[in-house]
Amino acid sequence: MVRYSTVASRHHCTAWQQPFHLDEDAARNTLFRGLAASGWHTTALTMRLLVESELKPAGGIVGAGVDELRWPKPVRPGDELRVESEILEVRPSKSRPDQGLIKVRTTTLNQNGEAVQVFIGNLLVPCRPE
Amino acid sequence: MVRYSTVASRHHCTAWQQPFHLDEDAARNTLFRGLAASGWHTTALTMRLLVESELKPAGGIVGAGVDELRWPKPVRPGDELRVESEILEVRPSKSRPDQGLIKVRTTTLNQNGEAVQVFIGNLLVPCRPE
Repeated sequence: MVRYSTVASRHHCTAWQQPFHLDEDAARNTLFRGLAASGWHTTALTMRLLVESELKPAGGIVGAGVDELRWPKPVRPGDELRVESEILEVRPSKSRPDQGLIKVRTTTLNQNGEAVQVFIGNLLVPCRPE
Repeated sequence: MVRYSTVASRHHCTAWQQPFHLDEDAARNTLFRGLAASGWHTTALTMRLLVESELKPAGGIVGAGVDELRWPKPVRPGDELRVESEILEVRPSKSRPDQGLIKVRTTTLNQNGEAVQVFIGNLLVPCRPE
């Protein structure tokens, strides 16, 4: 559940100090037409949901990079988010025989089933040399 | 300056509850060979630096998406980060005449001048119709 708290936001999330993330009145006249969470806030919430999910690669979730990251809809205060992950590819690393790469598409959905974030991440995992 | 605080991390940043982000001893035996910040933590710190920087597009920094995001080196406790942004492209939106898109490459560097994060972001800006 995404909560709207200007106090918490101002103190802990100074990264998001733009009016559309903090001030309900000011947010109305922006592109978002109302309060919206920062996309980076959504990535952080998504990462928490992922770490707590059934996705348990050996060695933890280690991101080597993200191929694309989109925020198709804003996250609003009160939204309840969940994640769905799809493994797209599993392959050994070309340069390091003791490592492998997993490509995962992670979609974050709100309570109406609308995608609010999609990204394709490349995870690094230790693996046994053949 | 990136500080190492397990208390703060455990309470506020539950997204990063993996041993290589929190526990110095456990981190030694992971891919990172020591404590490393979460990549999403670095994106948040970078966003703060960006918001406080000279990059002031009309309407604020509104990300439409990220084309690629890489973490070439881990961020370690004690690191001091700074950002460099390069405008790669400015163009009007094809679908919305009142909006434009700016493509920006943002590089986050540590105190040794090493890139710890690079991403190419697409920013949405309001613009005057021609």
